[in-house]
Amino acid sequence: MSKGILQHINTPTDIRTLPVAELSQLAKELREFIIDIVANKEGHLGASLGVVELTIALHYVFNTPYDNLIWDVGHQAYGHKILTGRREIFHTNRQLDGISGFPKREESKYDAFGTGHSSTSISAILGMSMASRLKGETKKQHIAVIGDASIASGMAFEGLNHAGDTDPNILIVLNDNAIGIDPSVGALKKYLTNVKKGTAKDENIFECLNFDYTGPLDGHDLPLLVKELERLKSVAGPKLLHIITTKGKGLKKAEENQVVYHAPGKFDKITGDILPKISENEPPKYQDVFGHTLVELAKLNPRIVGITPAMPTGSSLKYMMDLMPERAFDVGIAEQHAVTMAAGMAAEGMVPFCNIYVTFLQRAYDQLIHDVALQNLPVIFCLDRAGLVGQDGATHHGLYDMAQLRCIPNLIIFAPMNEIELRNIMYTAQLGLKHPIAIRYPRGRGVILDWKQKFAEIPIGSAEELKKGTKIAILSIGHIGNMVLELLSELNNENEVGLYNMRFVKPLDKEMLQNIFQEYSHVITIEDGCSTGGFGSAVLEFANEINCKIPIQIIGVPEVFIEHGTVEELQRIAGIDKTTLWNHINNILNKD
Amino acid sequence: MSKGILQHINTPTDIRTLPVAELSQLAKELREFIIDIVANKEGHLGASLGVVELTIALHYVFNTPYDNLIWDVGHQAYGHKILTGRREIFHTNRQLDGISGFPKREESKYDAFGTGHSSTSISAILGMSMASRLKGETKKQHIAVIGDASIASGMAFEGLNHAGDTDPNILIVLNDNAIGIDPSVGALKKYLTNVKKGTAKDENIFECLNFDYTGPLDGHDLPLLVKELERLKSVAGPKLLHIITTKGKGLKKAEENQVVYHAPGKFDKITGDILPKISENEPPKYQDVFGHTLVELAKLNPRIVGITPAMPTGSSLKYMMDLMPERAFDVGIAEQHAVTMAAGMAAEGMVPFCNIYVTFLQRAYDQLIHDVALQNLPVIFCLDRAGLVGQDGATHHGLYDMAQLRCIPNLIIFAPMNEIELRNIMYTAQLGLKHPIAIRYPRGRGVILDWKQKFAEIPIGSAEELKKGTKIAILSIGHIGNMVLELLSELNNENEVGLYNMRFVKPLDKEMLQNIFQEYSHVITIEDGCSTGGFGSAVLEFANEINCKIPIQIIGVPEVFIEHGTVEELQRIAGIDKTTLWNHINNILNKD
Repeated sequence: MSKGILQHINTPTDIRTLPVAELSQLAKELREFIIDIVANKEGHLGASLGVVELTIALHYVFNTPYDNLIWDVGHQAYGHKILTGRREIFHTNRQLDGISGFPKREESKYDAFGTGHSSTSISAILGMSMASRLKGETKKQHIAVIGDASIASGMAFEGLNHAGDTDPNILIVLNDNAIGIDPSVGALKKYLTNVKKGTAKDENIFECLNFDYTGPLDGHDLPLLVKELERLKSVAGPKLLHIITTKGKGLKKAEENQVVYHAPGKFDKITGDILPKISENEPPKYQDVFGHTLVELAKLNPRIVGITPAMPTGSSLKYMMDLMPERAFDVGIAEQHAVTMAAGMAAEGMVPFCNIYVTFLQRAYDQLIHDVALQNLPVIFCLDRAGLVGQDGATHHGLYDMAQLRCIPNLIIFAPMNEIELRNIMYTAQLGLKHPIAIRYPRGRGVILDWKQKFAEIPIGSAEELKKGTKIAILSIGHIGNMVLELLSELNNENEVGLYNMRFVKPLDKEMLQNIFQEYSHVITIEDGCSTGGFGSAVLEFANEINCKIPIQIIGVPEVFIEHGTVEELQRIAGIDKTTLWNHINNILNKD
Repeated sequence: MSKGILQHINTPTDIRTLPVAELSQLAKELREFIIDIVANKEGHLGASLGVVELTIALHYVFNTPYDNLIWDVGHQAYGHKILTGRREIFHTNRQLDGISGFPKREESKYDAFGTGHSSTSISAILGMSMASRLKGETKKQHIAVIGDASIASGMAFEGLNHAGDTDPNILIVLNDNAIGIDPSVGALKKYLTNVKKGTAKDENIFECLNFDYTGPLDGHDLPLLVKELERLKSVAGPKLLHIITTKGKGLKKAEENQVVYHAPGKFDKITGDILPKISENEPPKYQDVFGHTLVELAKLNPRIVGITPAMPTGSSLKYMMDLMPERAFDVGIAEQHAVTMAAGMAAEGMVPFCNIYVTFLQRAYDQLIHDVALQNLPVIFCLDRAGLVGQDGATHHGLYDMAQLRCIPNLIIFAPMNEIELRNIMYTAQLGLKHPIAIRYPRGRGVILDWKQKFAEIPIGSAEELKKGTKIAILSIGHIGNMVLELLSELNNENEVGLYNMRFVKPLDKEMLQNIFQEYSHVITIEDGCSTGGFGSAVLEFANEINCKIPIQIIGVPEVFIEHGTVEELQRIAGIDKTTLWNHINNILNKD
């Protein structure tokens, strides 16, 4: 009967009927349950394993869902989901129509606030506690759990700074495991390490900000956690509980290799061994093309530096960090700082490659405009995870970059169709562009096995005719052009359809566009990005500007939030897949 | 010969020839010079008066421009400009073709980094010092001056956190005057006050972050500043010098009323009295309409709360803060936090009005998408300073909001044409919208004297026909429609031109648009925003979607950064003025 407790836990109320002594058994079962499912279904493993005890203790002590509980970033909320009515559907995690990999308000009343991007929880819980104060809900508790990597982000500091000044009844649990996805960095992290070692000086940094600080506590000691949380429940004002946990706790390999086991893919649930993927001779990931190419270029050009906000592994900047640690920087979860630091470096003549996921660039939008573009500093932005990203879902898709960046003066915007174009635009950019440039590319693999070709310059603003046609010109931007190419090779009426790899969202290749407008009767634009205001809209604006009235069909992600699923499933839902495109083409050809 | 020193200072090299004993005289003259010019020419007064001694000391001790000196926000750089070769042209400050009111790289080699938005200086100077390290410039010094309100913003914390971990040779001068534009808020501010009083505990918060901390020092004691800066010049690693200054120092009224004298307009340079503007019976400022209407609504609807990131006076949220302090919040320079806190409040059923300047909303773009729109929380954004703002120039224009927001699902976007529409959309929004809404309006006065009318609901997505025409339909969005109306009243061929106040950028009034496309032969769209991807582009996309090929002329701000000048001058330069519109209309009519 070792699985005796968890199967009876349908809501946190069931946990609260247990004696404290049985909670450890529940923790053991919960941990096994998570490992069991994630081993097979994949997902974020390490973070949730690290907070099994905390999750149980919080739901045991606090009156969720009446009390508000927010999980920052949300990677670590698997235990929370399983204990709050989603045990039976947890195997659908991150799948199409399944539950989300992140807390989500629509999904459960226990998910007080949707998370996905880091460091939002303090602001959100502060807003909620202020709302409760105004509504006279004096007994309602407000708790946010945030990791040490996330609390170092600027936004979290803004929340702490405001909370410490307004006496809200909130509890911040600092889950300190010295790692985000990659190991935490920054002065605050060093400081927290000193606190743990007892070598920090008298006053605590959180006390300076007017928080009631307790800790550090062993975050895997369930009775201790329960006792401390019970105590804190009756303490008024802003409180911070500092607990120490081990990411991946309970699976030896995950504890030993925390970066890999953040989201390990399929693994053996007993040994922890990661199951080898059946890998044929596959093209490389764009990430690796970026990482290796940057090293190649940096060897040639001493002015090149690399910057990532907390994604050295995910972006593959780690290759440069390993080989040239003095020239490659992980700045932590600090996109704003990353961009303006890059601007500072560019102002001094360096050539910064600043790698940021598209969805996280939203955090540095002002810095890109105000510090980079306005001063026309030639920072090279490598925007990873462009387009629909798959299982991470709505919080992580990279869909709005073309629409949001297109209006910014001085900025060049490029999307490589394949590995060689990514290499070559990186090469071109560091030759001495007079403008900043944004290079967007997707997560995952390209299409070319023999990708490590000799560098060649790409003329700025030049598109490429891939296939000449007679009636319909398809204008693609970036990697999605490969899908179009594949479709055209399958079509019967292929001589009617032409294909153009436009490459630059800005500046557009206006000469080529003018020719296209003259030679074809229909234009279809296709992009792995929002159809409102994006690449297609740019083509449309130019056609309108030169008073060309050719029919232009804009294919992109429609104006709704797209949830999680495989990339292929989501592309179908969004209508940027082969079948949909084929239908559009047929409609046009049949109409004529 | 009391003006004997300043007139001989053409570059900082000239200062360095002076004995320390003469620097106080230079300070006196510099202060008088600033007061003299700003009294007559207007501009930001208080901040620059507060750092006169610091400015002289920095240029005296450090080897500018070889050493990099960055002024955060840049309000306080007037003394710096005057001492670095711009004394003779300082009277052109903030005027068209004159010098910028902020540091600007293009303007002078002494302006190491352009500023305007707050809290960028630490990241920029860190990037520069890292560049120097890589370039082997071992003697080069890197200094950033930042105020206490600005250092509390998240981005500054990100910079401190990274700097404290990477041992750069930088000096951060914390200019602590307990005020930004309005008085500083937040726990850090309280902490700094305790440091000043000597009641803070042992360890300093900056020391926790691994900075070498000195202070607090009297920032008006020139010999002391010089001595301390000399000492710090030879200290390696990250250093923070905490100085205490008085904003407005040297002009009694400015010291006494620091908020008003941040940028007082014209004043008597002896008495400090602000010169009364010749005010006829003028329409109110949009800001005051917002501020008073919010109070009116908040009295009726107890769920309403107000939020501003550090602009209570500028936004007029101060009216609500004065009357209902428990329901109106100044969160400090913390746009990210402001937006997510608003989301947290909305999640708990409150009705938050979050007032942010358009240009600063760029700082919270991710939070608007990820925390508000994705969760479809009905936060009401009041976006002040929309469009060309005038003398503050390129860093402060609010031009990209329509392009950047239009692609975000769930979000409604509205621009009132006048005071009554602003009131009525605020009224409508708090009735219980199911979506977030962004309401954009400009700085300055509306057009209606008798603006305090009874509230009326505005149907979401409804445009308004202001004048029927036969040939050209002008579609305007927001306040700029008044200019069009005025122009039409002056035209001879007025029956040919119709005017539509579109009001909603999203959702567009598609029914009205379809009628317009049928009834007219030409469409002109006009907006006080970027012409790329904005309102006009939305109209164009819809026309294309329904396969309507009517000629559409999009009039908006072209894709270049627009500098400073009066709003009227800049609108002319941008081509969104009456003459330009008149020319467009005539061209079309003459062609037909």
